[in-house]
Amino acid sequence: MGRIVVALGGNALGNSPAEQVELVKNTAKTIVDLVEDGYEIAISHGNGPQVGMIQTAFEVASKSDSKIPEMHLPECGAMSQGYIGYHLVSGIRNELLKRNINKEVTCLVTEVEVSQLDEAFKNPTKPIGSFVSKEEAAELMTKTGDVYIEDAGRGYRKVVASPKPQCILERNTIDSLLTQGTIVVCVGGGGIPIIKGDEYVGVAAVIDKDLSSAKLAIDLKADKLVILTAVEKVCINFNTPNQKALDHMTTNEAYTYIDQNQFAAGSMLPKVRACIEFVEKTNNSALITSLEKAKAALNNQTGTKITL
Amino acid sequence: MGRIVVALGGNALGNSPAEQVELVKNTAKTIVDLVEDGYEIAISHGNGPQVGMIQTAFEVASKSDSKIPEMHLPECGAMSQGYIGYHLVSGIRNELLKRNINKEVTCLVTEVEVSQLDEAFKNPTKPIGSFVSKEEAAELMTKTGDVYIEDAGRGYRKVVASPKPQCILERNTIDSLLTQGTIVVCVGGGGIPIIKGDEYVGVAAVIDKDLSSAKLAIDLKADKLVILTAVEKVCINFNTPNQKALDHMTTNEAYTYIDQNQFAAGSMLPKVRACIEFVEKTNNSALITSLEKAKAALNNQTGTKITL
Repeated sequence: MGRIVVALGGNALGNSPAEQVELVKNTAKTIVDLVEDGYEIAISHGNGPQVGMIQTAFEVASKSDSKIPEMHLPECGAMSQGYIGYHLVSGIRNELLKRNINKEVTCLVTEVEVSQLDEAFKNPTKPIGSFVSKEEAAELMTKTGDVYIEDAGRGYRKVVASPKPQCILERNTIDSLLTQGTIVVCVGGGGIPIIKGDEYVGVAAVIDKDLSSAKLAIDLKADKLVILTAVEKVCINFNTPNQKALDHMTTNEAYTYIDQNQFAAGSMLPKVRACIEFVEKTNNSALITSLEKAKAALNNQTGTKITL
Repeated sequence: MGRIVVALGGNALGNSPAEQVELVKNTAKTIVDLVEDGYEIAISHGNGPQVGMIQTAFEVASKSDSKIPEMHLPECGAMSQGYIGYHLVSGIRNELLKRNINKEVTCLVTEVEVSQLDEAFKNPTKPIGSFVSKEEAAELMTKTGDVYIEDAGRGYRKVVASPKPQCILERNTIDSLLTQGTIVVCVGGGGIPIIKGDEYVGVAAVIDKDLSSAKLAIDLKADKLVILTAVEKVCINFNTPNQKALDHMTTNEAYTYIDQNQFAAGSMLPKVRACIEFVEKTNNSALITSLEKAKAALNNQTGTKITL
């Protein structure tokens, strides 16, 4: 049936370990349905709420008298990969067990190279961590060189760059594991961002997980990129009387819709962009649909298909 | 040259991300020396200080007004695997780069099955988390069912079981990655402990990392188990005028020394026990030495060799 990359949203994983364990059970059902349909599967996932939780925990604790060190973003990202990967792998393994399927499933901590010259570093836009006052923000900007911006009237937050993924460092390992039939959870949160000078060094940035998933799908020569989200199909004129769910769009149509601002930044827009990237580079098709409809969408019964 | 499992101590990884990045540079040099000598290498590691740090961060933060949930031990362990694995993999990758060696290196989040019937669950001994007062301990014991014991005059601490590793769930994946030449970091902190009833569920316990490393080495049919610690050789009559460093001990000699209480619990004792386990099950030899002497020890020039 071929090879697919399935990208899960971080928001679909809940806000606590108990929520995550429950939500992952549904994810696991869908993934194992696809296993039964014969696909080789790499699973990527977002980590927005989770990496935020980890970072806040360390931020709060490091200001207490508990001798907890500050924890930087790449390390928080690595922790989130372990945390989410553990639950995803466990959930999938339990579902395989339930259906008597003998198959390996594993999670790889994944680093993704970004370019130091990426324009995104000149214009950091991705808010992370907790809110501070205007005065604190000014002080922190002077002291640390970090950038703080006013965020939706709620105070000031640190912003980091969201550079493009250039190279998934574990791609060959992921490829060989898929080939031998292992289900692989990887590239969590878009991957731990790394820049390469004389050596590889982690950098405080957030790589868009949909773009990293597209890069992964390209590297793995996947037959399809499947981006799972809250809706069954991509809509245009969303939340208006003219709302229309799309069964199919070409990359050219997608560009037109993007020019019309049909897709919300930070939500549907990066998903559509990631699909365009994959489709243009591979001439294969991409799918955007919901977790519940993934199996049906892969059988051409629903979802929004993106093709050249 | 064969296949080896190298077990690193969690205490050798420092108490902060900055310390860990520095210390891991030395670890990476030794590992890549062994790569150059032609070994297939799986690296396991402790996580005592790191999982303690993560757990304390969440404990402190969950009691603040920051809406951070409580984080259970298996999840904290998974985070520590991501955190330590990221630094180990990065350090090794940088050292490979420096020496112009083209080799894959990756970290697998690893779960290890333990038995619900393990006697250790009846007698939890491994202290984790922060200190509480006698009164708080009594209240928590009633409320949660957890066990708290008085710890070295410093207050009361929760204790969890340290059950024996029964099955490393990712063993086949690790095996195939080693076979194809990948350096694999795995079984961090002894592995995330899982019990299997109708399904696999994480359990609040700590698996001894040396025993898990021995189990890993047995499963992987490793030619040698190499346990790295703070000293070049195992000593008897340690810190007395009769102190003697051992070049070699048989498993029978090791049992005799254990009966004589030559090895400190929680320190050299579990290392020697892990070596006995590996040697008895495989008839291969094990080594205990320091990071700095690992290469020389594998060339039979130093370290303490354990054989049947």
